[in-house]
Amino acid sequence: MTIPAGLPDGVWVDGRVAAEVSPLDRGLHYGDGLFETIGCVAGRPRFLDLHLKRLASGCARLAIPAPEPGALAQEISRAAAQRGGAILKLIVTRGPAHARGYGVSGAEQGTRILLRYPPGPAAAGEGVRVRLGELRLGENPALAGVKHLNRLEQILARLEWSDPDIAEALLFSSSGALVSGCMSNVFLVHGGRLSTPRLDRCGVAGVMREVVGRLAVRHGIEFEQLPLDRERLNAAEEIFLTNALTGIRPVRELEGRAVSPGPVTRQLQQALAPLFLGKETL
Amino acid sequence: MTIPAGLPDGVWVDGRVAAEVSPLDRGLHYGDGLFETIGCVAGRPRFLDLHLKRLASGCARLAIPAPEPGALAQEISRAAAQRGGAILKLIVTRGPAHARGYGVSGAEQGTRILLRYPPGPAAAGEGVRVRLGELRLGENPALAGVKHLNRLEQILARLEWSDPDIAEALLFSSSGALVSGCMSNVFLVHGGRLSTPRLDRCGVAGVMREVVGRLAVRHGIEFEQLPLDRERLNAAEEIFLTNALTGIRPVRELEGRAVSPGPVTRQLQQALAPLFLGKETL
Repeated sequence: MTIPAGLPDGVWVDGRVAAEVSPLDRGLHYGDGLFETIGCVAGRPRFLDLHLKRLASGCARLAIPAPEPGALAQEISRAAAQRGGAILKLIVTRGPAHARGYGVSGAEQGTRILLRYPPGPAAAGEGVRVRLGELRLGENPALAGVKHLNRLEQILARLEWSDPDIAEALLFSSSGALVSGCMSNVFLVHGGRLSTPRLDRCGVAGVMREVVGRLAVRHGIEFEQLPLDRERLNAAEEIFLTNALTGIRPVRELEGRAVSPGPVTRQLQQALAPLFLGKETL
Repeated sequence: MTIPAGLPDGVWVDGRVAAEVSPLDRGLHYGDGLFETIGCVAGRPRFLDLHLKRLASGCARLAIPAPEPGALAQEISRAAAQRGGAILKLIVTRGPAHARGYGVSGAEQGTRILLRYPPGPAAAGEGVRVRLGELRLGENPALAGVKHLNRLEQILARLEWSDPDIAEALLFSSSGALVSGCMSNVFLVHGGRLSTPRLDRCGVAGVMREVVGRLAVRHGIEFEQLPLDRERLNAAEEIFLTNALTGIRPVRELEGRAVSPGPVTRQLQQALAPLFLGKETL
């Protein structure tokens, strides 16, 4: 069977093979939900425990009933096992509305939607070109870190460029803090020390960001989550992006300026490789 | 036919009677769309031209293809004509995704979902009790004013209270500006002068806010959109809320402090009444 590029080859709604969702779903009405994008290799989901942990934490933050983790892990593993490589996207919403309006009855039955896509192109290990986004992200500690369904900022930021040679845009918040890319987290290296933006006012706490932080500590690289800004970005000797599907991507050009992928980036890429290929677990 | 309270008695997806939406819809994945909530009286939608104008402006802001306004107006009017009073909720999204990720192909076919609900309770003309919300709204000029589907901030703000005698919470932005309620705009009166928060960094430009602004000018009331804050709120002699479904609601108690519905509020309520009852048009 040939699947059109970009479309899923499997869709399950609440565990059943399905093609449709209720027009009353609060995910549709308000973006009232969360998502996870999980890379699968050799028929197995990578970093599944970290994805499920972040999902549970996001559900708690938004007071959305969390799917039972054991059953959810089985459902995800089953969808992964039917293919070699794949990308799974899981959406969990607060479910169909019980009444009009923002209010929550507390008796909502969450909806879970699992989509399986063919695997993407191999990660660009040699480095990517990156721009600086013009859109500034709004700051809201109540939503910071959560991988929720309110993604209009990312869509508007992604609409700013169409050059296929530009892989990502780095974004700042309304107060000028460096936050992340549209679809990745960002790490900087200054004098051998690794840092990534603190995500207490906006941004998404990426699973690969968590993996890289743990690998840094394990390999004796000094690592901190910090408030960072344009000046610290400009002063960075190494810059790389992380994302669950693409791993570590060195930035080789930022807004026209050449950046050298350096030793810290390479060390972390080497440490990640066996995990990313599914040959080791964290 | 008896319809459960809070559920629609009519659902149309892209003009067809339908119960379901694609699980690939970008409205569901990202909140990538807009909505309008339209009050209907005597089988006719109120202020339909203002709703369609705001929808078109929101589509332009988000680069979402706008539904053809003539056909849309007919669809809405038909749904309204089948009932005496009703509430219509229209959702317009960028449509099913052509590929994974935030990127827009530009060839998306928008989805429109029309839901018809029984009319709500009569407006509380005598005044409502209001609290101050704790959540601060993030500031993003790119989204300010637009009635888009990214509404997690409003949901979290609405989760802060459950007392049914509290009708609304007034919200401030991250920089301390007074913005609006969760589901209404707010107007203040100081020395006979009317003001409402400028919505250049967050908030929704409500249709009833527009109507009230026009009525104020028509009736010789001095009116301005201004940056407002907690201090100006505390100094207000009159405070009222506006919303397309509930019209003008005087605030009679703010965080425990009694507020008197005053002459400016009453004058505007009287001016609005024939429009709200469908006996006159703007």
